Amino acid sequence: MEAGLFTANNVWMMVCTGLVFFMHTGFAFLEIGLTRQKNTINILFKNIFIITGGLLLYYAFGFNLMYPGFEEGSSGILKFAGFGIGAPENGMTPDYASGGYTWWTDFLFQGMFAATAATIVSGAVAERIKIGSFMIFVLFYVGLVYPIVGAWKWGGGFLDSWGFYDFAGSTLVHSVGGWAALVAIALLGSRIGKFGSDGKPKAIPGHSIPMATAGVLILWLGWFGFNGGSVLSADPALTSLVLVTTSLAAAAGGFGAFFLSTILYKNMDLTMFLNGILGGLVGITAGADLMSPNEAVVIGFLAGLIIVLGVSLIDKLKLDDPVGAVTVHLICGIWGTLAVGIFGDKAGFDQFLTQLYGVLIIGAFCVISAGIILGILKAVMGLRVSKEEEMEGLDIHEHGMDAYPDFRTNEH
Amino acid sequence: MEAGLFTANNVWMMVCTGLVFFMHTGFAFLEIGLTRQKNTINILFKNIFIITGGLLLYYAFGFNLMYPGFEEGSSGILKFAGFGIGAPENGMTPDYASGGYTWWTDFLFQGMFAATAATIVSGAVAERIKIGSFMIFVLFYVGLVYPIVGAWKWGGGFLDSWGFYDFAGSTLVHSVGGWAALVAIALLGSRIGKFGSDGKPKAIPGHSIPMATAGVLILWLGWFGFNGGSVLSADPALTSLVLVTTSLAAAAGGFGAFFLSTILYKNMDLTMFLNGILGGLVGITAGADLMSPNEAVVIGFLAGLIIVLGVSLIDKLKLDDPVGAVTVHLICGIWGTLAVGIFGDKAGFDQFLTQLYGVLIIGAFCVISAGIILGILKAVMGLRVSKEEEMEGLDIHEHGMDAYPDFRTNEH
Amino acid sequence: MEAGLFTANNVWMMVCTGLVFFMHTGFAFLEIGLTRQKNTINILFKNIFIITGGLLLYYAFGFNLMYPGFEEGSSGILKFAGFGIGAPENGMTPDYASGGYTWWTDFLFQGMFAATAATIVSGAVAERIKIGSFMIFVLFYVGLVYPIVGAWKWGGGFLDSWGFYDFAGSTLVHSVGGWAALVAIALLGSRIGKFGSDGKPKAIPGHSIPMATAGVLILWLGWFGFNGGSVLSADPALTSLVLVTTSLAAAAGGFGAFFLSTILYKNMDLTMFLNGILGGLVGITAGADLMSPNEAVVIGFLAGLIIVLGVSLIDKLKLDDPVGAVTVHLICGIWGTLAVGIFGDKAGFDQFLTQLYGVLIIGAFCVISAGIILGILKAVMGLRVSKEEEMEGLDIHEHGMDAYPDFRTNEH
Repeated sequence: MEAGLFTANNVWMMVCTGLVFFMHTGFAFLEIGLTRQKNTINILFKNIFIITGGLLLYYAFGFNLMYPGFEEGSSGILKFAGFGIGAPENGMTPDYASGGYTWWTDFLFQGMFAATAATIVSGAVAERIKIGSFMIFVLFYVGLVYPIVGAWKWGGGFLDSWGFYDFAGSTLVHSVGGWAALVAIALLGSRIGKFGSDGKPKAIPGHSIPMATAGVLILWLGWFGFNGGSVLSADPALTSLVLVTTSLAAAAGGFGAFFLSTILYKNMDLTMFLNGILGGLVGITAGADLMSPNEAVVIGFLAGLIIVLGVSLIDKLKLDDPVGAVTVHLICGIWGTLAVGIFGDKAGFDQFLTQLYGVLIIGAFCVISAGIILGILKAVMGLRVSKEEEMEGLDIHEHGMDAYPDFRTNEH
Repeated sequence: MEAGLFTANNVWMMVCTGLVFFMHTGFAFLEIGLTRQKNTINILFKNIFIITGGLLLYYAFGFNLMYPGFEEGSSGILKFAGFGIGAPENGMTPDYASGGYTWWTDFLFQGMFAATAATIVSGAVAERIKIGSFMIFVLFYVGLVYPIVGAWKWGGGFLDSWGFYDFAGSTLVHSVGGWAALVAIALLGSRIGKFGSDGKPKAIPGHSIPMATAGVLILWLGWFGFNGGSVLSADPALTSLVLVTTSLAAAAGGFGAFFLSTILYKNMDLTMFLNGILGGLVGITAGADLMSPNEAVVIGFLAGLIIVLGVSLIDKLKLDDPVGAVTVHLICGIWGTLAVGIFGDKAGFDQFLTQLYGVLIIGAFCVISAGIILGILKAVMGLRVSKEEEMEGLDIHEHGMDAYPDFRTNEH
Repeated sequence: MEAGLFTANNVWMMVCTGLVFFMHTGFAFLEIGLTRQKNTINILFKNIFIITGGLLLYYAFGFNLMYPGFEEGSSGILKFAGFGIGAPENGMTPDYASGGYTWWTDFLFQGMFAATAATIVSGAVAERIKIGSFMIFVLFYVGLVYPIVGAWKWGGGFLDSWGFYDFAGSTLVHSVGGWAALVAIALLGSRIGKFGSDGKPKAIPGHSIPMATAGVLILWLGWFGFNGGSVLSADPALTSLVLVTTSLAAAAGGFGAFFLSTILYKNMDLTMFLNGILGGLVGITAGADLMSPNEAVVIGFLAGLIIVLGVSLIDKLKLDDPVGAVTVHLICGIWGTLAVGIFGDKAGFDQFLTQLYGVLIIGAFCVISAGIILGILKAVMGLRVSKEEEMEGLDIHEHGMDAYPDFRTNEH
């Protein structure tokens, strides 16, 4: 391979790595924007912990666990005993990964992905989880569950052999996070005041809609790297198709949610519009490289409808998901994975069934894993902060600080 | 063409596409930062609508309308009857667009541009326009007016044959948006309280100067893609020159506005400094590839002076432009377009006249088009919200939400 | 060199230029987030001044001063008499800079670096410095001191001949800014209320922790360009290694500060976590291309510990550094520079001594230069605003504006 092509490929993958890293800023803005100001520092702390801790864990053994066998003479599991990543002999040459990128870029791109799953959980459990319990959960979920599931498909494991397809992680990233979010909010219970004595859900408005909006725009931009980088090279035809399908699905997802929510609820709900965009992005992620632009629009639009219905369903189930993480990442993640069997280059009943098996197997594994980790944490140290702390805000109790000390705030 | 060069070109163009997309975050921050908190959600809603709706529209027919004849056997206008974009046979090879990028990248880059014109209008009409009317206006302006004007020059139409030059859109994007902004604020009238009973303008301060500042910095960054991508390849000499002229004009524009406003008004006005930067950016856009660094500094500095004078002029005309969009995008857009005839590689009296004709023809077309669309909307459904709604804020009336519910606010 | 490789190199360097520019948004967010709302516009004004003024100055003569002798027939110093940058004959070809980038990219990348040093000072002197004095200081420090020091090493001067190593500027950028920050806060004195009558430091909490957090995440992203671009080409092995060592050091730095501050102070201090990340980034900057990932983790972790101890030391010295700039940029900059003699490819006692000499010589030069400039300014026009202005806030006094006029604020 000519040096120019190898270099251009690696440049694109480094740019994508940066964009996926930037998604953490997007997630942080979205989560704090949609929750109350009294829990802002706590949410940011969790997010900063996830990025730093997630990257260090993935470095220490997650990468080796997820992609076993790259280095001669050492199995992935045995690498547990070691520490850190060592580059294979050909890791810096076009012989590695078909010249799509270097070993170092590979690690960093995958490392940025790894932390995403935990961040998804962070939003769902916001405003009431004990930070110590959450941090321990992250260590196990990012350090073990995520790379094990990843190894089944992206590491060349059994789901890969079956023909299960998940281009950039509708299931392997988003649903993996979404399942844990579902288990966590079921175990945690709803925030005080979320459901009235009549059982009806009440809106707890987020404290900064501009931040939430900026978060979604940053996430959309980050998805250029998330999906565009999942091509694992800068192949012009494929990367540019992926950016088109990704952006069209995002736009159509926003519109789907905007239309349905305006019809159903008669007001122009910006947060629904925003979550529709995210739903479209998650929905296209499994097959962003397989779809035509028209198919991307359809997948995205349906994801937008799913968002509106899903948020309502979660409410009916008496579950409390402050940022809509389960609907966006789990339900739309499932939709996107199944859509690979319905639309695009791989569509077919056999493929649909394979996608369904994959969804179910990974779902079962994640629910059980998250249930065990969180169940043990609940029994041993508790998951939920005290009622007093929840009312007064986690910021002042856990961190001794106020996020906005110069401004006068309303209590609620 | 070697694969490495084609890939490097396409990588650059995809990066630029992402940067132009990011400009929408910049526009959103700038607009809400310079307006009152009670209208924040409304502005964000408009902006999110523009990005998603604009992209879908451009996909459905704007791209085919603006660049007719790329596909054999179908004329641009006839594609109206069809839906969506189909790639030409050579769309993914270096035979397309001289290897500068693929068909998919071309569409997405141009699609991100298209929405910009509408976003410019959004700022000018903020805090008083009916959202329904605005959304319908956007559909026609982005879907029809923008691509028609674009076709005259970038699509190879008659202005292109005449030798009219507009590298990245001082006229084709910024003035197109600016003319509509001018027509719209004339039809809408000024916000309640903008002009005292003595006719003197009063400052209505924006609610978050940090957001406005971040918006300008993000826009400057986005301009790396807006101008840098308008090279339509990663040609090293040309792209890097364009980034230099763009950044120097931005810096000089900020200084020009800073100096003149400090001399005239004796206070260090940050918003003038910021709008000066934007003026410099708009001013260099028409000839960013033609100018030497010294010329870029002069063009930008003069644009900065124009900003201070233009803002004062708009006030004297009793027009109310909350974010200075007409001055930044229309007046500096005209200045930048004419500057191509005064400075740089194409300078000359004939070129100056051609530039002037282009400005006038496009101006007339935009004013008439915007006048017709907005005039009909005004007659049929009204352009302006009720006095009560304007006083209480559009957020609570149109969207049933508060942008910052946790904070205590001042009424004004 | 093949066109593809040259183009890919230049694309990477332009991306890095954009990322370093984006760091100024990060610095701005960090500084205003960690200070009080009443001084927000003042800080933003300073930052915008630095970016625009710094770039223009660097264009007018800083670039020629820092990299003398690139153009035949003119010495660097003589270029003073000229104005602006002229490209050498081979400036747009692979013959320039080994094909790593064009002359224009070189200028713009270096220009973005230059402003950084002044921005570091801005944070330390916040909330009490006279803006006029600060602006004059910036002109001399960015226009003269920074490029002179830069010329000693990156311009091929005597420190380069001695073998002093500073890959991306732990000393040449961060310490250069840090030394001036130290001198400035010593001359300025502490903010009213920072030290009680018993001499004990009191926390003056920043007004927006979300902005500070976003600032740090943006800075981390920007460091992809700061360090990744310092390779001066897109060499796949080296650039990707640099991104890995940079990110691991950042993560480890955050963890180091998190652990030590939690042990010492028993609360989970988000700002310490954030400054730890910055400390790790500054610490790895001198040797990001020399270290293994394991070494990067160690250097970063130790930088994180240094942050906690350094902040405490600054307090004990009765110095008032609102954002921790001296600890982050000066102390961790020194640490990173010395670490090149302890870890990595160049480790050795001789190298350690050379690093130490470099630190001391540059430190002496910066302290003396900053002392002279600031001393003269103090004598002639004063450095510090009046007590009344400091209490009421610099925004309303210097700029006649409020950063958040719609919100009710607390006085403190």
